[in-house]
Amino acid sequence: MTTTTLSERMNWRYATKAMNPDKPVAQDKVDVIIEAVRMAPTSSGTQPFELFVVTNPEVRTRLRAAAHDQGPITDGSHLLVFAAWDNYTEERIDEVVQLNKDARGDISLIDDYYNNLKAGYLPRDPEINHNHAARQAYIALGFAMLAAAELEVDTTPMEGFEPAEVDQILGLSEHGLRSVALLSLGHRNPGGDWLLPMPKVRKSLDALVTHVN
Amino acid sequence: MTTTTLSERMNWRYATKAMNPDKPVAQDKVDVIIEAVRMAPTSSGTQPFELFVVTNPEVRTRLRAAAHDQGPITDGSHLLVFAAWDNYTEERIDEVVQLNKDARGDISLIDDYYNNLKAGYLPRDPEINHNHAARQAYIALGFAMLAAAELEVDTTPMEGFEPAEVDQILGLSEHGLRSVALLSLGHRNPGGDWLLPMPKVRKSLDALVTHVN
Repeated sequence: MTTTTLSERMNWRYATKAMNPDKPVAQDKVDVIIEAVRMAPTSSGTQPFELFVVTNPEVRTRLRAAAHDQGPITDGSHLLVFAAWDNYTEERIDEVVQLNKDARGDISLIDDYYNNLKAGYLPRDPEINHNHAARQAYIALGFAMLAAAELEVDTTPMEGFEPAEVDQILGLSEHGLRSVALLSLGHRNPGGDWLLPMPKVRKSLDALVTHVN
Repeated sequence: MTTTTLSERMNWRYATKAMNPDKPVAQDKVDVIIEAVRMAPTSSGTQPFELFVVTNPEVRTRLRAAAHDQGPITDGSHLLVFAAWDNYTEERIDEVVQLNKDARGDISLIDDYYNNLKAGYLPRDPEINHNHAARQAYIALGFAMLAAAELEVDTTPMEGFEPAEVDQILGLSEHGLRSVALLSLGHRNPGGDWLLPMPKVRKSLDALVTHVN
């Protein structure tokens, strides 16, 4: 990807307020966006979240009702729900250890590393651990949005929803998960989107960045 | 960007453990990575973090000492420090309101939206607000890492540091900021990196993704 194209894509994307319900996202593009979520780096490689890809119309209608009636939830073709672990547990970390050993061999470095991690994580307040897990999910959310933009897929990131209701609709609690962000995938409906014609608003480099040279 | 290239770039990147100190990142690529941070979407467009770009060798030596002596901090050419707001305040939100009005005009929608946001955010516990701000910084962290990968720039994301020490070294507290993540930019040193030859470890699609069709 050239420098110009990357910048262009970042300017092209916006938090789409109106999706075209008649223009679903091609499956090969959805697959790449999901792959971006899967490949996103996370702290110590724990990938402490799960992704729910909701296309079912009835479920999306219920999710929309739990999310201030935001149209892209049903008018996009796919709704991604990022659900972070409610806590780090020994079992969850042991699964990560096993995955590492399966790929890299039974080297002592792996046990040493994750035993140290357990000693740090397991005694902590579950809320601190959940917040840490949620941050990792947001890296993947960033990967998904940038990957989508590069594929000319529109996205609507949403935090404005009732987490308890979303968790209930998707049955997340019994799996130790908590919904932290929604991301609709679709294609913009230019005629119906009040936000699209508005200039993009971002802080200046001067306001955001400090150089320590 | 083609689908293949995006997947290839995500496989190419890894949490680089050894940077080549003789191969700095070209300034035009650094500029695009910083632009990715600036353009990353955030909740309600608040961009509730600042970015410190540290090239000063003495400062980086001190930061390395505060971060378990991780080599990429000094062996990369640029260290990005993501510093999230310690809290949402009326002044900070008013600056965002003004930025919106400067770009989009003095429309009542803007005041209505951010007055509602203030009513929700300002009474909340500062730690909840800081955690929310930190999540937004992690979206930008994701944008930075994926943009870097596409420019063939290596990155080392780091959470393993003493935030209080990093905050002190960069004088963050007096600006109401708290360091949440470090990202070294550089170019890998293939001969010296124990991690590079190891297979990448990621959960399977089946383990990570649930389809609700």
